[in-house]
Amino acid sequence: MLQTTIETIVFKDDVLQMIDQRKIPLSFEHFECRDYRQVEYAIKEMVVRGAPAIGDAAGYGVYLAALEFESQDLESFKKNLLEACDFLEASRPTAVNLKWALVRMRKIIEAGGRNTEIVRRIKEEADSILKEDIETSLMISKNGAEVVPQGATILTHCNTGALAVSGYGTALGVIRQAHYDGKDIFVYADETRPRLQGGRLTAWELMQEKIPAKLIADSVAAILIRDGEIDLIIVGADRIAANGDTANKIGTFMLSALAKVYEVPFYIAAPISTIDVETETGEDIEIEERCAEEVTHIEGVCFAPEGIEVYNPAFDVTPWQNITGIITEKGILRPPYLEAIERVVKE
Amino acid sequence: MLQTTIETIVFKDDVLQMIDQRKIPLSFEHFECRDYRQVEYAIKEMVVRGAPAIGDAAGYGVYLAALEFESQDLESFKKNLLEACDFLEASRPTAVNLKWALVRMRKIIEAGGRNTEIVRRIKEEADSILKEDIETSLMISKNGAEVVPQGATILTHCNTGALAVSGYGTALGVIRQAHYDGKDIFVYADETRPRLQGGRLTAWELMQEKIPAKLIADSVAAILIRDGEIDLIIVGADRIAANGDTANKIGTFMLSALAKVYEVPFYIAAPISTIDVETETGEDIEIEERCAEEVTHIEGVCFAPEGIEVYNPAFDVTPWQNITGIITEKGILRPPYLEAIERVVKE
Repeated sequence: MLQTTIETIVFKDDVLQMIDQRKIPLSFEHFECRDYRQVEYAIKEMVVRGAPAIGDAAGYGVYLAALEFESQDLESFKKNLLEACDFLEASRPTAVNLKWALVRMRKIIEAGGRNTEIVRRIKEEADSILKEDIETSLMISKNGAEVVPQGATILTHCNTGALAVSGYGTALGVIRQAHYDGKDIFVYADETRPRLQGGRLTAWELMQEKIPAKLIADSVAAILIRDGEIDLIIVGADRIAANGDTANKIGTFMLSALAKVYEVPFYIAAPISTIDVETETGEDIEIEERCAEEVTHIEGVCFAPEGIEVYNPAFDVTPWQNITGIITEKGILRPPYLEAIERVVKE
Repeated sequence: MLQTTIETIVFKDDVLQMIDQRKIPLSFEHFECRDYRQVEYAIKEMVVRGAPAIGDAAGYGVYLAALEFESQDLESFKKNLLEACDFLEASRPTAVNLKWALVRMRKIIEAGGRNTEIVRRIKEEADSILKEDIETSLMISKNGAEVVPQGATILTHCNTGALAVSGYGTALGVIRQAHYDGKDIFVYADETRPRLQGGRLTAWELMQEKIPAKLIADSVAAILIRDGEIDLIIVGADRIAANGDTANKIGTFMLSALAKVYEVPFYIAAPISTIDVETETGEDIEIEERCAEEVTHIEGVCFAPEGIEVYNPAFDVTPWQNITGIITEKGILRPPYLEAIERVVKE
């Protein structure tokens, strides 16, 4: 049975409380948002990260904006609320769940009704998004079971656990399920430079769950894949295009390319909400480039020479041809993905 | 014209003075060795690193031991001196230049003569190793010119510059030469986790030489290679087997495998002394596994959860089939390497 007591996102007494993921595992602190500007800050600065969790946070961000503007006349209320949606959407460009949550919110705002009604519906929608996220990740974890053989050694990248989805996790959810199913698995976790989500967050979740695991520098994965040490690779996604091309944390493409050469199964685990059918292929996905300090500084300490230029893309795109399957809450999609995605999105 | 004022290793007044490479670029400090035990410590702790520079340091380490034991009777003197060689050789297992320098020293010790004569010859040999290292790297840099096209974008890994060879560098020597030849090159430097020799040392040398460059996380290289952004890759070597299989810093294999898929030329630059004909293939190369703290701590700060297990191999082996050419002081070797190496080593 799945268990996790990690409450990534909690909304209570009009305060959005999130585990501050910048601090884990050195300290366990909460970050509180009392208005939508703080939510935007939390997403941009990666207090909260992981595509599904960002969507959850954005939902409550809109609700906090709705409370703030509730007493205005209807026109100003709706105008300011839609502007708050735009402001939240601009916080990070690649993860599509953010956009997806805000599309749901905009629909409610535009559907009309009185201020109080809209405020109530927005709260219900934010609660739904969070609840769906938790249920969805549970389904993903269960659906992933069929691809994990007994005794499997699994390689994963970045963090796709309870911290990323306010549920059980996507890729790490599948791993967690396999562990609780008694499959005697072993996990290699890429540290995931530059933000070290693997070394900080995934390592922390694996320790919490007592799943046998080792942490590795990202470039170690190649020799493990070559030497037949890895039975399968499972990672998450930040946006999946209509043809199955998948944007995920930088380093994912490298793993997929090596997996293809050495014939290691390579799976994406993600909710349907991560699929953006309006994005035709990976070429249409905007890749966020983040600041140089993420690379040159660690824990506030600079290790690189002053003034060195840096190229720091936060994500890369894995072509659909490199993906063995996409594990969703509605089952495992198989290539060619164009048809599989069209079918599952229509359902 | 090549220029470098970086004096990685200086021996003067019976003191081996080395730039402390653990401190660069945050501070520029020297580490002084007054006996061979300190030299062993400096190699093991990576005060000095880079296969050729380690060989240079070991040579003077034996000389410091010779001074220490000089007043003993001849038998004790030789016995203690040979034990000092063994002690120094055990400091790091993969780089063959260490072994190679000590083979030269043992020959002198075993050739006989009086204590004072042996001491004198050991000093001459240590000086020769250093002098040859400087000249060799200059020749490698020049020989590499033919593989660097005008306007090339070059990817490199780890540090193979003046800091690694007490000369101009091997792979970074070729890059330096291309820059001084006015080839208008651009360099991407992998940061090279876990020890960050790229982010610390290569970035520092590139800044010193004003070579246009950007620092990247190791996993970014894959998308640059795929997208045709890289014209060639040049890296160093810690040991080259008789068949051309090459042990180098962890992450090298990953680059070579991707280079093969995307048809990007992949060169090794290394002195002939890095070739170990006694090592038949890469499978016979011992790969040093270093401590977990190298991965979990940066600048003394731990970012990973306490107790997480780590797999931290310091090197990996690139098969000869992935290597376009091996740039040496005697010219560029081309596959199949078994014959090319046999020929060049016999010369």
